[in-house]
Amino acid sequence: MSLSSLALRWSARRAPLIARATTLCARYNSTYTPQTAALADIDPSRLKVTKRTDLKPQPDLEGLAFGRVFTDHMLTIPWTAESGWDAPQITPYGPLHLEPSSTVLHYAQTLFEGMKAYKNAEGKVTLFRPDMNMKRMITSASRIALPTFNGDALLDLIKQLIRLDAHWIPERPGYSLYIRPTLIGTQRAIGVGPPDEALLFVILSPVGPYYKTGFKPVALHATTEYSRAAPGGTGAFKLGANYAPGVVPQREAAVHGYSQNLWLHGPEHYLTEVGTMNMFVAIRNAQGVAELITPPLDGMILPGVTRDSVLSIAREHASGAHKISGLPDQLIVSERPVTMPEVKQALKDGALLELFGAGTAAIISPVDRVGYLGDDLIIPTGPDGLGPLSKPILAEIQGRQRGEIPSSWSVAV
Amino acid sequence: MSLSSLALRWSARRAPLIARATTLCARYNSTYTPQTAALADIDPSRLKVTKRTDLKPQPDLEGLAFGRVFTDHMLTIPWTAESGWDAPQITPYGPLHLEPSSTVLHYAQTLFEGMKAYKNAEGKVTLFRPDMNMKRMITSASRIALPTFNGDALLDLIKQLIRLDAHWIPERPGYSLYIRPTLIGTQRAIGVGPPDEALLFVILSPVGPYYKTGFKPVALHATTEYSRAAPGGTGAFKLGANYAPGVVPQREAAVHGYSQNLWLHGPEHYLTEVGTMNMFVAIRNAQGVAELITPPLDGMILPGVTRDSVLSIAREHASGAHKISGLPDQLIVSERPVTMPEVKQALKDGALLELFGAGTAAIISPVDRVGYLGDDLIIPTGPDGLGPLSKPILAEIQGRQRGEIPSSWSVAV
Repeated sequence: MSLSSLALRWSARRAPLIARATTLCARYNSTYTPQTAALADIDPSRLKVTKRTDLKPQPDLEGLAFGRVFTDHMLTIPWTAESGWDAPQITPYGPLHLEPSSTVLHYAQTLFEGMKAYKNAEGKVTLFRPDMNMKRMITSASRIALPTFNGDALLDLIKQLIRLDAHWIPERPGYSLYIRPTLIGTQRAIGVGPPDEALLFVILSPVGPYYKTGFKPVALHATTEYSRAAPGGTGAFKLGANYAPGVVPQREAAVHGYSQNLWLHGPEHYLTEVGTMNMFVAIRNAQGVAELITPPLDGMILPGVTRDSVLSIAREHASGAHKISGLPDQLIVSERPVTMPEVKQALKDGALLELFGAGTAAIISPVDRVGYLGDDLIIPTGPDGLGPLSKPILAEIQGRQRGEIPSSWSVAV
Repeated sequence: MSLSSLALRWSARRAPLIARATTLCARYNSTYTPQTAALADIDPSRLKVTKRTDLKPQPDLEGLAFGRVFTDHMLTIPWTAESGWDAPQITPYGPLHLEPSSTVLHYAQTLFEGMKAYKNAEGKVTLFRPDMNMKRMITSASRIALPTFNGDALLDLIKQLIRLDAHWIPERPGYSLYIRPTLIGTQRAIGVGPPDEALLFVILSPVGPYYKTGFKPVALHATTEYSRAAPGGTGAFKLGANYAPGVVPQREAAVHGYSQNLWLHGPEHYLTEVGTMNMFVAIRNAQGVAELITPPLDGMILPGVTRDSVLSIAREHASGAHKISGLPDQLIVSERPVTMPEVKQALKDGALLELFGAGTAAIISPVDRVGYLGDDLIIPTGPDGLGPLSKPILAEIQGRQRGEIPSSWSVAV
């Protein structure tokens, strides 16, 4: 059976899944309407700010590890089923007092977002596509019966928090302020159900570049023993529940010399995600045209902001709307299922161009090796570690993030 | 195709799954060896007790809702990767102080157990098969890279906590003290990985009978849109991550008039669990012999203590080792896959005897209706709500729990 007919057969089999996922997502997205007239929404005008007087020392940027150091302040917004969202508060960063019966501690009623603020040479602070994070956070909340909210209102408050702690944003290129909005169920009773109390909080952490010295491609273990997500599960939502189960598989991959899991699905070994990133593969087709492929949003794939950015930039280039220097003139951009047998065949045919992960932390994470069923597949990478498609796309994303390339994706704080 | 040949075909298809799950479970169970000489295990001799002076008022037993009221004290045992388990503490019940960066709040690094203490007419306090809970808690910890421990040591401490708060155990029949051991990752850094800090805590809650006035069978929605667990996932472990995702499906079932989800798996519609309980179905075979069926431990099914108790009692009866009054003399006890088509066919043939859930909270939860693909299947139940097999089995379990039927399952506190 030829690869293209295989792909067609796979697509046909996945079509109902994708249709169902689309319906579900639409349902979740439509659930945000200010809940009832009686329940208060998040209201930035009610913000109370308690500033810290003893500011913390700034960390040494050289030894900065991801997510270990937090800024002086945090944002908290409590919610109750009775009255909705209470007044937002910015207070000194410090411990939360949670009852031991809080449902987040028992039933994983938690979801989060990851986003970054950048400071350019002129000191201007920007966010990258924050509307995408707000929208996804609301979708995640709907999936586990946590309260939804007005995303613009939360974004307004996040900007106020960033402005207060703006001196924490490193000005050095490649550095940024990582923003972690989190929503937890805090009901004080251990019945399993929609919680009657919740807490939204936002903390900030200065972070360095993912790759300190150039790009270092990673080795992946194509994982068949564990799965990250399944139809009818929660893989498409940024829930805490998707993360704890991945730690042991990652540790097992590390024991065998691989840095991350390449999560597969089903007996067909569909590629789904890489570690905690979305996944792209580029293959030259029989006509010699490059195809950039990422798995479709079939309910098992997280709708990543970087994933969407890569797709958008590639499509703008392919359509001619916004040509990217360095990309091949002809480019096919596909959201379609792709399997390990297809990747293996492409590698054998010399048609595999590259394979990479895409996420907020690393932006692009090139892959140079995949351990699959006992074999090591050596994946081509460019001389500096980046492949022929990911390199110009990364440059475009970084340019838009830093505001060097004007775009609507960069939002002033 | 006949039902028995269908069952054979299903079994063949599931065999590799079950073998893999067995291997994985063995691996997790073998991970407990006191970690290294340098790391301290849980040590009851280091217990520090701080008693509360202002004891709380006792709740009104009539209006007691599940898991809303907690006793005067709690047990906490902190752990660090550097030095292992620290000194256990019994302190007044009160809030935990958790950094907002604690990994449990972001990545669902949490697992728990549910067990009950009973007080008989003479005031003697007993636990029911607590060794099973300790063993499962350690297995759960291994699955998400939380620290393991000596189960006997934790059980010793739980007994001390119960003895201190023994006046909270209702003496009324059907009432008990619900015990909730919980283990959370408390690392103060948001990198995803095995946490370098953790906290084990145990809280106690007096609870009433699940059914206040006789047995009330429930209606289930056979759920095809959502799944509870999948191969390579975490369905076989008592992790918080398995619970938050079930709340919205339960709410959707309730909207359609069903009280719980009947979780199905795969296009074959295998029955897996009921709400947060294991599932049993009883079918009379062609020879007129009753078969008690529950899905096998294939990696997607929680190894429930009540599930094991039902199976053990039924097998002791079937083998003649311990005959149970009221059960049919001949009984087949099967851990095997069972599908909705098989249940539907048995119902049509008049061969379906009963369907019930089994768990710590309700013990046995009979089912009288299953909504499946738009049809309502009416499931037979006995005159008092309980079916012909579950009724004598429940009586035996309750007898052993209350110590009226002597058994090694009842353990003195």
